[in-house]
Amino acid sequence: MNKDYVLLDPWHIIQDGFNSKDNRIYESQMSIGNGFMGIRGNLEETFSGNSLQGTYVAGVYYPDKTRVGWWKNGYPEYFAKVLNSINFIGIKVFLGNQELDLDKVTIKDFRRDLNMKEGTLTRTSTIIDSNGRETKIESLRFLSKKRKEIACIKYSITPLNYHDTITLIPYLDGNIVNEDSNYDETFWDEVNKGFIEDSAYLTLKTKKLDFHVTSATSFKLLKNKTEINTTPSTLIEDKYVAHKLNIYVSQGETLTLEKYVSLSSSRYYPKDDLVNNVVRSLKSAKNDGFDLLLDEHVSGWNKSWESNDIFIDGDVKAQQSIRFNIFQLHQTYTGEDSRLNISPKGFTGEKYGGSTYWDTEAYCLPFYLGTSAAQISKNLLIYRYNQLGKAKENAVKLGLKGALYPMVTMNGEECHNEWEITFEEIHRNGAIAYAIYNYVNYTGDHKHLLDFGIDVLVEISRFWEGRVIYNKNKNCYMILGVTGPNEYENNVNNNWYTNRIASWTLEYTLQTLEFIKNSFSESYEDVLNRLAIKDSETIKWMDIIKKMYYPKDDNLGIFLQQDGYLDKEDLLIKDIPKEDLPLNQTWSWDRILRSPFIKQADVLQGLYFLGHLYDLETKRKNFYFYEPRTLHESSLSPCVHSILASELGDKEKAYDMYLRTARLDLDNLNNDTDDGLHITSMTGTWMSIVQGFGGMRIIDGTPSFKPFIPDQWIKYSFRVLFRERVLNIEVSKDKVLVTLEKGDPLTILLYDSEIKLTKQH
Amino acid sequence: MNKDYVLLDPWHIIQDGFNSKDNRIYESQMSIGNGFMGIRGNLEETFSGNSLQGTYVAGVYYPDKTRVGWWKNGYPEYFAKVLNSINFIGIKVFLGNQELDLDKVTIKDFRRDLNMKEGTLTRTSTIIDSNGRETKIESLRFLSKKRKEIACIKYSITPLNYHDTITLIPYLDGNIVNEDSNYDETFWDEVNKGFIEDSAYLTLKTKKLDFHVTSATSFKLLKNKTEINTTPSTLIEDKYVAHKLNIYVSQGETLTLEKYVSLSSSRYYPKDDLVNNVVRSLKSAKNDGFDLLLDEHVSGWNKSWESNDIFIDGDVKAQQSIRFNIFQLHQTYTGEDSRLNISPKGFTGEKYGGSTYWDTEAYCLPFYLGTSAAQISKNLLIYRYNQLGKAKENAVKLGLKGALYPMVTMNGEECHNEWEITFEEIHRNGAIAYAIYNYVNYTGDHKHLLDFGIDVLVEISRFWEGRVIYNKNKNCYMILGVTGPNEYENNVNNNWYTNRIASWTLEYTLQTLEFIKNSFSESYEDVLNRLAIKDSETIKWMDIIKKMYYPKDDNLGIFLQQDGYLDKEDLLIKDIPKEDLPLNQTWSWDRILRSPFIKQADVLQGLYFLGHLYDLETKRKNFYFYEPRTLHESSLSPCVHSILASELGDKEKAYDMYLRTARLDLDNLNNDTDDGLHITSMTGTWMSIVQGFGGMRIIDGTPSFKPFIPDQWIKYSFRVLFRERVLNIEVSKDKVLVTLEKGDPLTILLYDSEIKLTKQH
Repeated sequence: MNKDYVLLDPWHIIQDGFNSKDNRIYESQMSIGNGFMGIRGNLEETFSGNSLQGTYVAGVYYPDKTRVGWWKNGYPEYFAKVLNSINFIGIKVFLGNQELDLDKVTIKDFRRDLNMKEGTLTRTSTIIDSNGRETKIESLRFLSKKRKEIACIKYSITPLNYHDTITLIPYLDGNIVNEDSNYDETFWDEVNKGFIEDSAYLTLKTKKLDFHVTSATSFKLLKNKTEINTTPSTLIEDKYVAHKLNIYVSQGETLTLEKYVSLSSSRYYPKDDLVNNVVRSLKSAKNDGFDLLLDEHVSGWNKSWESNDIFIDGDVKAQQSIRFNIFQLHQTYTGEDSRLNISPKGFTGEKYGGSTYWDTEAYCLPFYLGTSAAQISKNLLIYRYNQLGKAKENAVKLGLKGALYPMVTMNGEECHNEWEITFEEIHRNGAIAYAIYNYVNYTGDHKHLLDFGIDVLVEISRFWEGRVIYNKNKNCYMILGVTGPNEYENNVNNNWYTNRIASWTLEYTLQTLEFIKNSFSESYEDVLNRLAIKDSETIKWMDIIKKMYYPKDDNLGIFLQQDGYLDKEDLLIKDIPKEDLPLNQTWSWDRILRSPFIKQADVLQGLYFLGHLYDLETKRKNFYFYEPRTLHESSLSPCVHSILASELGDKEKAYDMYLRTARLDLDNLNNDTDDGLHITSMTGTWMSIVQGFGGMRIIDGTPSFKPFIPDQWIKYSFRVLFRERVLNIEVSKDKVLVTLEKGDPLTILLYDSEIKLTKQH
Repeated sequence: MNKDYVLLDPWHIIQDGFNSKDNRIYESQMSIGNGFMGIRGNLEETFSGNSLQGTYVAGVYYPDKTRVGWWKNGYPEYFAKVLNSINFIGIKVFLGNQELDLDKVTIKDFRRDLNMKEGTLTRTSTIIDSNGRETKIESLRFLSKKRKEIACIKYSITPLNYHDTITLIPYLDGNIVNEDSNYDETFWDEVNKGFIEDSAYLTLKTKKLDFHVTSATSFKLLKNKTEINTTPSTLIEDKYVAHKLNIYVSQGETLTLEKYVSLSSSRYYPKDDLVNNVVRSLKSAKNDGFDLLLDEHVSGWNKSWESNDIFIDGDVKAQQSIRFNIFQLHQTYTGEDSRLNISPKGFTGEKYGGSTYWDTEAYCLPFYLGTSAAQISKNLLIYRYNQLGKAKENAVKLGLKGALYPMVTMNGEECHNEWEITFEEIHRNGAIAYAIYNYVNYTGDHKHLLDFGIDVLVEISRFWEGRVIYNKNKNCYMILGVTGPNEYENNVNNNWYTNRIASWTLEYTLQTLEFIKNSFSESYEDVLNRLAIKDSETIKWMDIIKKMYYPKDDNLGIFLQQDGYLDKEDLLIKDIPKEDLPLNQTWSWDRILRSPFIKQADVLQGLYFLGHLYDLETKRKNFYFYEPRTLHESSLSPCVHSILASELGDKEKAYDMYLRTARLDLDNLNNDTDDGLHITSMTGTWMSIVQGFGGMRIIDGTPSFKPFIPDQWIKYSFRVLFRERVLNIEVSKDKVLVTLEKGDPLTILLYDSEIKLTKQH
């Protein structure tokens, strides 16, 4: 069984006690961010133990040289990486002459508290050094939700049984590496550094792509809460600037350092003007002072929770985790900048390097649709629209026409480099088409189809047209040599999900053309011309739709994962020895591949996406066939199962799967939280409640709900945004209350009955 | 069309003219070796152009850090590499003050001649520098066939239209890298260097595994063929020692340097004594002098050709290439040291790194069986027998029992690291079992089965037993998730060849146990006990043999490459645009995988190995189905096709395929000869004549021949060794003459008729 890493609390993630071994896991859990930058929960002081020091700045990446065994034609030259940037949280501490290394002292009463309601991370602890000297340390940090460039730390230190000179060295350190650097190279060069009045600053630039990042820092020093004046000495080394403060502290006195940090990049300011701007915002922040900055930050989070909180009564485990997921999502992506996207680890780690996966379209979009203004979701679509040119180049590279969106990307170029994924996991293209459908269906923004959507849909359809083959003997179209969402099989023929999402894309593209012809008739010819659409093309698409081959088994009444799936051994997850799980950490790859075990929802992913096209019986048969064979070793898996189980009325399974997705990182369920949080799957937790327990769907523009309540819960409620309205859905054991909290009157479906809602005053 | 790289000549490989662009190709073709060491055809002088400097010493390798994209459980930690060693052929030349760089001068009348009859490489050329000074250069080099540690170069230089001081610096250079180093690391450290009397020496050791290699060099200097005394100065730098000679040379005078080199490794001498031994053999060689060394070397080659030559009348192209293939094979492996094996590139390049592939068992063994004493072949089998322990460890790593021999190895440990090959190309195990059958069948050494063979067979059988799965629905055994010999499909189910060779292994193992029971009855119980063979095990094997599933198509009358092969597009090689070939250099990997095109013989490989078990009609149908779909982008492919075409009486196809295998490197047919020669496939050329045109098989211990002669040929003859006899088979348009040249009387089959041969006096 997994251990309990954090205390249960509805609004707090609390680490009680410290051990070096688990430190990387807590560093991930205690990450904070503001959509513009993020930091792992590293300690301020020197810590020579188990740690991944991580500071990440949105959109600043590095094209690291690809590392492969045997090069294959079509591989990208580089693998883009989220870049570990200037470490700005660091404070070196000397107690007398001795540097404090938290790995070398006894730590007692260690407690960290990630306050999700307010967006702050606090720590209290007492440390005892080898001379028996006890010191109390407290800190509080936040990355301002209001001022994206600002970070603040309040760091207090109290000698409990001694007095001595204490030295504090708040620094900016550019001597950082990416842990996942392919050839142990460093990625940064220094541009400038120095001191302007009481601010220290440091600018680095990336060795490739020439991103510049400047950070500046200043401080206030307080003794027993009263500001004291001091003249720091300054330290300057290679890629390193710091202030140095020596203060005599009596026993029981508290010395407090307020560290103010500002950081920005050449994505937002001209390079020449970067230092000035960063120092300016730093000064303004310091001027306003810690308390004001904290107040405006907390009120920003309060506002966010007002529209986004999900409340659960009677189940703290569930309550804590849904808030943790929502909190992390809002820390990662705010949707203001359409050049940005949502990385699988957000700002909490380096694994998976690149920024954008199909996770965004398949999992993240529903969350932002339901919790944020439509423009935020639209920006996610525009991101792909802007990268259509690169997706077309990518298809050409593989000898095909149309557009193949990359598996992993920063700027639209593919940067993944395993053939079975890079070249074969082409179902991602379907998710990108589906997201357009999903967005328009939710928001009613049909104009998007004309302005952006149709271009993407047509090029993806062209890709599918080129990628299918016509099988003369069987008079059908097939898709050979793919990897489905289930990455525990590679290079299979006729993955049901891939075939289905491909033909669905063709259908939706044809429908969209028809829709444009009818609803934007004046622009229809323009679209045909702009995209050079030929009749022969659409006729071919219709033929493919008609004759697409779908592997299935009539006896079992199921769709087949892929050709030959039933030839595999007839084993279930429960047959696997517990100690072998997760399989990807114990079995050799070939054994995983030839086993019947599925990494994540695949056929079920299709039945979730295209739920409106399949009856309950079909869903039931497939669910109860595949669920017992699914490992959920992708974080993206349990939520889909939870939602389907809800639809099938299997409350227990739905609840189990909910907890599995919700508490993945809080309980380190896949034994990999040390690498960072599973950000993009956190949306699945939200979906499991809203679409699962709440049963929310959009049917012909009308929100529909079929809520039920898990046995373990007394009551729950969630808010959703829908076309300028705010709906609140409150579900208890015997009652469902849907309230229109904002916006014009609206008709909804509740258990298939129409209900007209108006705002109550 | 491919260009002509070399002139046609029955005994010589002649390069006529020089261009830098093709230099690496010629370097491969002009490689020389003596089974103990080998060098590419690098120029002695400085050459800043396109070159792969390569010196390779048998059995000295390096475990380079593995390079992969995403690590998978079961991958080996390292990839062993043939090590590029001390460059000992180098001679720096200064004409006056100007260093001669052959890439910076005009080269006219350039001619290199690899004399295969005598095993020497000579060069003549005239170079013109930027001052218009013409210099004639001649050189001759060989690696002694008699003294494995000795290399000699005679290097002559004649100023044709000027006089000046000429400086010659014969050196040993340890500043060498492997071009294929994964992380650009160097692999060597210096141990010692210096001068002992007139010898310079240098010892390096590998940074891992601690192999030591010492080379020593000395020289004689002649003017107009008369030795002159000179006191050289000495140069010593990091990993570098040299003599420096300044000689005034008049116009028309010829200055000649005889460079004597000795080299050995800690595989043959204690490390402490390495320098002494190497210097001793150097002195002895120099003492004996160039002419004597050359004489004994040439007579060694003459003797080798006496028993191994294949003579072809009327077709120089064919004649030259078979000799080139035989010559290179004898340069690579002499079979004296059972710790050594045959690397795909021999001593001619670095590609494919490791030493041993299934090439050895599947392709090389027949050549050595037919051309060398049985012990040489037996040593190849002992090599695997000695590595059985590691093969068992390898199986455990993949969660299986028995033994899985590695795909690539130096010492028995797997060092390949692509999952689709490392973990899935398990058919290699079958080839290792088959080699035992092949060896015993050819030599009649049945005792080998008892002493060595049965251990290997039983453990391989155990592996197959664990690797098959029983399919309840279809009441058969299947092998899922493999890559067959056709590496242009990965992770397929039921590759016919793999299934077939697996069940054949089980059959042969059971037969061998039965044979031991009958013929070595006194040892039978020992064997059962030693290998802990249980009845339940052999019963299971029988069940697998009985119920193994073989994919086939009854309409076409063919075995199927793998499940689903006929779902692929129905295209033939002739449908591929010429400019796309070879596909592996132009198509993306996924496109290759999903195409119907086959890299190398796969079903046909099985029909070749197990030819005695299939009728002609089966072979015919499969051959004419698969051959038009086969790309032959593995060098191991054409020979199998040539042999089968011969058996089917398709003389034209057999001849085409013969030329394709024979001239692969002379004509650079796969556009990759620059990386080195395809050594292990050169045996296929020999097999195409002996087993193909000659139709040689061993049937129940009796050699059988069914020769025919290609239309292009007037006459051909080959010698084979068979159980202490030497047979000469001479085939002309209207006559076949089989002569027993050595050994006891023997009955053979000629066109299925028994003929008793006795030696003629």
